[in-house]
Amino acid sequence: MAELDLIVRNARVATAGDEFEADIGVKDGVVAHLARRLEAEAGREIDARGRVVTPGGIDGHCHIDQPTTDGSVCADDFASATRSAACGGTTTVIPFALQMKGMTLREAVDDYHRRAEGNALVDYAFHLIITDPSEQVLGQELPALIRDGYTSFKVYMTYDDMKLDDRQILDVLSVARREQGLVMIHAENSEALAWLTRKLELAGRTAPREHATSRPGPVEREATHRAITLAELTDTPILIVHVSSREAIEQIRWAQGRGLRVYAETCPQYLFLTEDDLARDGFEGAKCICSPPPRDAANQQVVWDGLINGAFQVFSSDHAPTRFDDAQGKKLHGADASFRYVPNGVPGLETRLALLYSRGVLEGRLSRQQFVALTASNVARMYGLFPRKGTIAVGSDADLVVWDEKEVVIRNDALHHDVDYTPYEGMALKAWPGLTLCRGHVVWDGEAPAPAGGWGRFLACAPPAPARPAGRHVTDFHPA
Amino acid sequence: MAELDLIVRNARVATAGDEFEADIGVKDGVVAHLARRLEAEAGREIDARGRVVTPGGIDGHCHIDQPTTDGSVCADDFASATRSAACGGTTTVIPFALQMKGMTLREAVDDYHRRAEGNALVDYAFHLIITDPSEQVLGQELPALIRDGYTSFKVYMTYDDMKLDDRQILDVLSVARREQGLVMIHAENSEALAWLTRKLELAGRTAPREHATSRPGPVEREATHRAITLAELTDTPILIVHVSSREAIEQIRWAQGRGLRVYAETCPQYLFLTEDDLARDGFEGAKCICSPPPRDAANQQVVWDGLINGAFQVFSSDHAPTRFDDAQGKKLHGADASFRYVPNGVPGLETRLALLYSRGVLEGRLSRQQFVALTASNVARMYGLFPRKGTIAVGSDADLVVWDEKEVVIRNDALHHDVDYTPYEGMALKAWPGLTLCRGHVVWDGEAPAPAGGWGRFLACAPPAPARPAGRHVTDFHPA
Amino acid sequence: MAELDLIVRNARVATAGDEFEADIGVKDGVVAHLARRLEAEAGREIDARGRVVTPGGIDGHCHIDQPTTDGSVCADDFASATRSAACGGTTTVIPFALQMKGMTLREAVDDYHRRAEGNALVDYAFHLIITDPSEQVLGQELPALIRDGYTSFKVYMTYDDMKLDDRQILDVLSVARREQGLVMIHAENSEALAWLTRKLELAGRTAPREHATSRPGPVEREATHRAITLAELTDTPILIVHVSSREAIEQIRWAQGRGLRVYAETCPQYLFLTEDDLARDGFEGAKCICSPPPRDAANQQVVWDGLINGAFQVFSSDHAPTRFDDAQGKKLHGADASFRYVPNGVPGLETRLALLYSRGVLEGRLSRQQFVALTASNVARMYGLFPRKGTIAVGSDADLVVWDEKEVVIRNDALHHDVDYTPYEGMALKAWPGLTLCRGHVVWDGEAPAPAGGWGRFLACAPPAPARPAGRHVTDFHPA
Amino acid sequence: MAELDLIVRNARVATAGDEFEADIGVKDGVVAHLARRLEAEAGREIDARGRVVTPGGIDGHCHIDQPTTDGSVCADDFASATRSAACGGTTTVIPFALQMKGMTLREAVDDYHRRAEGNALVDYAFHLIITDPSEQVLGQELPALIRDGYTSFKVYMTYDDMKLDDRQILDVLSVARREQGLVMIHAENSEALAWLTRKLELAGRTAPREHATSRPGPVEREATHRAITLAELTDTPILIVHVSSREAIEQIRWAQGRGLRVYAETCPQYLFLTEDDLARDGFEGAKCICSPPPRDAANQQVVWDGLINGAFQVFSSDHAPTRFDDAQGKKLHGADASFRYVPNGVPGLETRLALLYSRGVLEGRLSRQQFVALTASNVARMYGLFPRKGTIAVGSDADLVVWDEKEVVIRNDALHHDVDYTPYEGMALKAWPGLTLCRGHVVWDGEAPAPAGGWGRFLACAPPAPARPAGRHVTDFHPA
Repeated sequence: MAELDLIVRNARVATAGDEFEADIGVKDGVVAHLARRLEAEAGREIDARGRVVTPGGIDGHCHIDQPTTDGSVCADDFASATRSAACGGTTTVIPFALQMKGMTLREAVDDYHRRAEGNALVDYAFHLIITDPSEQVLGQELPALIRDGYTSFKVYMTYDDMKLDDRQILDVLSVARREQGLVMIHAENSEALAWLTRKLELAGRTAPREHATSRPGPVEREATHRAITLAELTDTPILIVHVSSREAIEQIRWAQGRGLRVYAETCPQYLFLTEDDLARDGFEGAKCICSPPPRDAANQQVVWDGLINGAFQVFSSDHAPTRFDDAQGKKLHGADASFRYVPNGVPGLETRLALLYSRGVLEGRLSRQQFVALTASNVARMYGLFPRKGTIAVGSDADLVVWDEKEVVIRNDALHHDVDYTPYEGMALKAWPGLTLCRGHVVWDGEAPAPAGGWGRFLACAPPAPARPAGRHVTDFHPA
Repeated sequence: MAELDLIVRNARVATAGDEFEADIGVKDGVVAHLARRLEAEAGREIDARGRVVTPGGIDGHCHIDQPTTDGSVCADDFASATRSAACGGTTTVIPFALQMKGMTLREAVDDYHRRAEGNALVDYAFHLIITDPSEQVLGQELPALIRDGYTSFKVYMTYDDMKLDDRQILDVLSVARREQGLVMIHAENSEALAWLTRKLELAGRTAPREHATSRPGPVEREATHRAITLAELTDTPILIVHVSSREAIEQIRWAQGRGLRVYAETCPQYLFLTEDDLARDGFEGAKCICSPPPRDAANQQVVWDGLINGAFQVFSSDHAPTRFDDAQGKKLHGADASFRYVPNGVPGLETRLALLYSRGVLEGRLSRQQFVALTASNVARMYGLFPRKGTIAVGSDADLVVWDEKEVVIRNDALHHDVDYTPYEGMALKAWPGLTLCRGHVVWDGEAPAPAGGWGRFLACAPPAPARPAGRHVTDFHPA
Repeated sequence: MAELDLIVRNARVATAGDEFEADIGVKDGVVAHLARRLEAEAGREIDARGRVVTPGGIDGHCHIDQPTTDGSVCADDFASATRSAACGGTTTVIPFALQMKGMTLREAVDDYHRRAEGNALVDYAFHLIITDPSEQVLGQELPALIRDGYTSFKVYMTYDDMKLDDRQILDVLSVARREQGLVMIHAENSEALAWLTRKLELAGRTAPREHATSRPGPVEREATHRAITLAELTDTPILIVHVSSREAIEQIRWAQGRGLRVYAETCPQYLFLTEDDLARDGFEGAKCICSPPPRDAANQQVVWDGLINGAFQVFSSDHAPTRFDDAQGKKLHGADASFRYVPNGVPGLETRLALLYSRGVLEGRLSRQQFVALTASNVARMYGLFPRKGTIAVGSDADLVVWDEKEVVIRNDALHHDVDYTPYEGMALKAWPGLTLCRGHVVWDGEAPAPAGGWGRFLACAPPAPARPAGRHVTDFHPA
Repeated sequence: MAELDLIVRNARVATAGDEFEADIGVKDGVVAHLARRLEAEAGREIDARGRVVTPGGIDGHCHIDQPTTDGSVCADDFASATRSAACGGTTTVIPFALQMKGMTLREAVDDYHRRAEGNALVDYAFHLIITDPSEQVLGQELPALIRDGYTSFKVYMTYDDMKLDDRQILDVLSVARREQGLVMIHAENSEALAWLTRKLELAGRTAPREHATSRPGPVEREATHRAITLAELTDTPILIVHVSSREAIEQIRWAQGRGLRVYAETCPQYLFLTEDDLARDGFEGAKCICSPPPRDAANQQVVWDGLINGAFQVFSSDHAPTRFDDAQGKKLHGADASFRYVPNGVPGLETRLALLYSRGVLEGRLSRQQFVALTASNVARMYGLFPRKGTIAVGSDADLVVWDEKEVVIRNDALHHDVDYTPYEGMALKAWPGLTLCRGHVVWDGEAPAPAGGWGRFLACAPPAPARPAGRHVTDFHPA
């Protein structure tokens, strides 16, 4: 066994299922041995005595170097985003290859590969965003792309330049069912929020805080119910992304209780921000504008409950890197313009894991197993990367985070993205990744990221593998 | 008191609130006296000893002489429809003045008055159907029409040539809130049912029974949830019409339980037909095609429960008079065509009251008070006709039904509409109106209707008056 | 028609179903005639022009001259209680004939008749309280008493000297089903509240405010769920009395939605008091101790919603007349003793109607029809007194309230019970009964009650007549 | 690494979190090494190529050599029960040390150790059954026993000689909260089922099938709701055992959705039997009498859904070994006696895993991970045996099942308990354990169990470790 490349000794390994002390032997970037005591030697040894080691995080929802249509600029390219990911303990990112209207999906994918190639510090796969589900796209491109390893695709129920109507969503779901893809859904009622926005503007209420007023809980709840119905009619699993509210969670648990394969994701902004943050002084509230908006403390508690009781399967960042103090940033159209023109989204790739580990695990809300499941294992399963990614087991990639349990105050200065703020500035945490390895390679050593360059590789995804209960059929008719 | 025109003696009067024995004195078409024993005499006396007398029915949902866009023909004009109504105990009908796309609302109303004028045997008011909610319509026409007595308007969430999108519905609700109108909503998800229909057709499944397959419970449930959300966002009362399913009823009770002013209507076809009736031999199933479709026995029971526990406020016919065996009828495009081309709807103006009285009251499911509330008083309140219509009280119009409790078998031959079938052919009932009076005038004597001609008058409606609980506000923002 | 005894002219009559202007002609204590204009004359005429006239209230839940077991004293006898009722617009009271353990029911009833006879200013019927459901009681006494007009009986799930266990309740329900009685249930989990009380006492928390802590929402919810289950198993209607909380209301609406005949009552203390009132200075909070306890503002809103949406059928006072500053009163065992020894209950016979009319009707939450239904008509139906009581219709008793709409501040000095406080001291109302008639006799003229003495008569009750939907059977087995 | 005792080569290891191929190296009964290829040699090697290896099952609910009070006999002692367990893939059993009324807990435990000592083929821990929660028991014995490794205790809401009342359950919960024990609850309303039983008997309905009639869904639902309430009031986790019905599951999911730590268990009899099995010819139905009773196919589906969506955490046998054709067996009082005298329970220790693996995993309803979680890992966590038991990880006991995927028909002749029937006789399965190892020792080789004798050891349990969400407090008061 002299052939091992690396041994992490005395690790307190925590996976989604287990917790044990072991030496981890790595060969060719893969976990080759787990043992109480590995007698072999290796080119490199790391002593993790007394420290928890978890699987490298997988961020299943982040926006990187994504083209925009509103004149704003995505501040992170693959280099900065994956650097930031690595420093926060994330070893796989799954950003979105966006089909602009009129583009083929394949063109979007090819373009996105060009952006990623050679620039990523950690591994990556691609979701697709389908904005133009033409017959060609649905009948030929999408099936071919699924076979090529692009097995998850997001559809929007809002945003004028991206949203699909219910019939288009049914078409996409129908393909997903036949070809075994997974549909991710952004669920907000587009027309309702546009209507409310217009009313607010007519009343002169355009400050950032009104962003929340324009998208109240029922706007999210309605679209969630509708998405569930479309999934039910086609007997197809779906993932509702970035769920923010008690009302949406009630719909999701109702669906799950009836045996539907409805999965859900939430994000740090729904645990740690509220609508009050949108009312921060000056235009600062714009920093926290994202959709759906943060709610209130009661909703935060229900989101926590959903993490605990299994309503949510995955916890992602929805990293959307728009700068604040920048001509193409949150102030794009000037602080006088309506909230509606503020580019949506908050940065979060680097802070996701430490936030949940500190406030979830170390404050007793979640077990380490739940933490790993939500941030890594379930994500890998959901997107067809398991067991290669998302766990620490024989044969899996040696993606490891060694935790330092110590007080850390979040400062944007200390983060590694190219965004000029974090919404969590000044928040005190109890832990931060002290070491991050991607396929056995140290990409963050607690002080600095590894040098830029192409360590990260593209991952082709298998069909999604959430548990597949025997379907309940609403009608006796299903698309061929 | 010699001045009375009519006395109905020894009536067992049943209203929504009361049940008592009295002589009913009528003067100028209005109830002038109620007394144990009226000593006065009158031009006409009717002895109702031993018989129940209820307020004349109000059919709040019926289609009469309504223009169509699919080449079918509305078989009943005001003469035949109101004749049929009278013979079934209904003394007020509220059909729909339909705005065809491109038409003004006022034109629709004027045209509809021309069709009604001089032809109605019983009284009538008009709902509006809004298919083109332009700025002109919403800003000027609709407010003016509400002031003129057209206070309720229906919007469709389905049917390509009539449906409104969510933003348009919000606009209509917003006007209704400000001007005190009532919005009636046909709730089915248009895109979902179109999608399912197309899949069924591609699979060669085009028989009438597939009409039900194409519009399963979740299609109705989703639109119901969405309608509730739109009403909630605008803090406006709505009436969900012709509710057919357990799933939609659950949504409605959920909304009512949260203090929302969500009202609901159901119809005889959801109590007495099932989807099996759509599978009747040959093309006969087409006779029962209506939307939403009849469901199954379990759903029927839940509809009964909803009548009993107050989920439903009104019980209407949704009379849609299309002939079966007729070139422009249910067989319009031939029995080989898809169910989708079969004109929707079933006739029911004449049978509505006797069906509910027999199966509801006389079989012990409903009290007489509930019967009167559902078929007359609540309808009058809902549409601003109370207390002129819908009750037997001092000052109210003398619209009376004297019941004969006897076995009656429904035969289309014995009905008075111009439709060539009834879906209830052969059903045995336990009662039928023996006498119908509209404003003191006998319009049905148990043998024959009164001669055609213009006894019926137009009724301008006041603002709707369902109970108005203190609103719960979802947002702090409401349209000016 | 010169034979009329009384005419109330120009009344704006409001009943549960109707609202109309009329002259009301009374003969022999009964409404003989309703007309726009009565040409007859009468011994007495009252002009009600411009004023609303509603049916005299029926208080279906009040404690009068009831024996106690804890050394406290019921401060109101039939004379003072019915005087107070009359001055507040209530013309029928239904207090409880209490079976003490070991007593026969018939003894309890006979004793109670002796207490009432000749002392009541308004009419009265009796509920029974069953504390000892022996075979003799269930098999012989109760059926006989039901036939004699005592058709409703209350059982307690709490209070050591009165509570029945689940098997006894099933026995009582079973008799009620067979003999057509109505079971009223006080639903709180006795053991849970005793356990919490003991824990609080051990912790030295004995102040009045802890009364609410000792009986939190789940204590009421659990017993409500259990009561519903027992009713479901026996397929028997029940009335849950004095419901206070959102959690119990959810259970009730859930049961009603499933077609069960579960009825519910609430009381003014759950609309107008909160647990904060139990924390009033000194020992004053004891004035508001009742069970279940008042909750918080959010619960109050849900109780209002339940009145509006039909969860509740009746609104009663639960008048429990214990003096505050009295050796046998709320201070019975001294202010140092635990809350558990404070006699439960608040006075409310006189204020019930004016509170609901002012805050419900005149502030727009309820229609006048809902007000009448909740306070009179539904009560009469529930307890088999309809249509003799509870409405203004031909043949009904002339029990009338003529309302003065004017500002009135509640002052105990101005009330007519024998209790030394009202929990609503200082509350401003917008109306008060200006005149109360019981069977055509003025029992309150707006200034003073009629002289004491026996105008009030005993009313034998018919079987309860809430709507009886076709039963849903949980098992295929029902008691013979 | 020559020191290994055993290597299982080429195993397709499935745990609650992972699935990987590895060689498993065992030393001193513990998993010492997991690797793609172990170069070491060992005293024994087993080749598992192509076969799935799961953790040995833990049966968290079984009755072994338990004293009875009804004259029946527990047919399995530790020797036969653990032999049967081993042959079915179960390597740890947790039967119940029963406190008979009047006995101390410690006496019960000591007695039970004597029964187990030296007789068990697989490992064992003990639950306690508390039937007499005296002050002494609660204040001293129970805390001491918890510290000694008896950390879970069951209470009954039914059975006359065992049931606790609500106050006693609150006391037990309160101790559990303070001392970190776990309370398991048998939830059926004792009085309701006794009442229904008596009614059935009076009607002459005493056949086995009436057992189900006497305990309909609402009887279980009510007690489940009550148990949840008691847990909520004390802010204490509970486990509802052997849940059988849709109605109980709805209560459980409702509680879980509100953030309560309510856990649930179901059993094979609720997936594979229905009430029709109680109606088998002759007295054969008695073989399937257990409590709660099996329900119908619709309920079975909801139980499956609950396994899939996480309502259930554990899947146990509730093995209750009473012979059928035996003087002290199911026919105890003769086939003419009422169902109420038939000893309750079905045997199931040996068939539990194969049933769930075949019908759950191999028919696609559950993933292997879910299977392992439900039958081993979660059970170990629930009862404080994790990670020593319930997984295949470095440092865990080498409890292994090697699966043979082949057609097996269940025949009682081939089972190894001492019961004379299985309710699943003749059922065809798709897999059966081919090899069972307990701490590295082969206890079943696919042909025969290891010789009797004391391989099995007693396991002291740590405090239960289900995830502990931050408590939601119903009241502000909690027991010291």
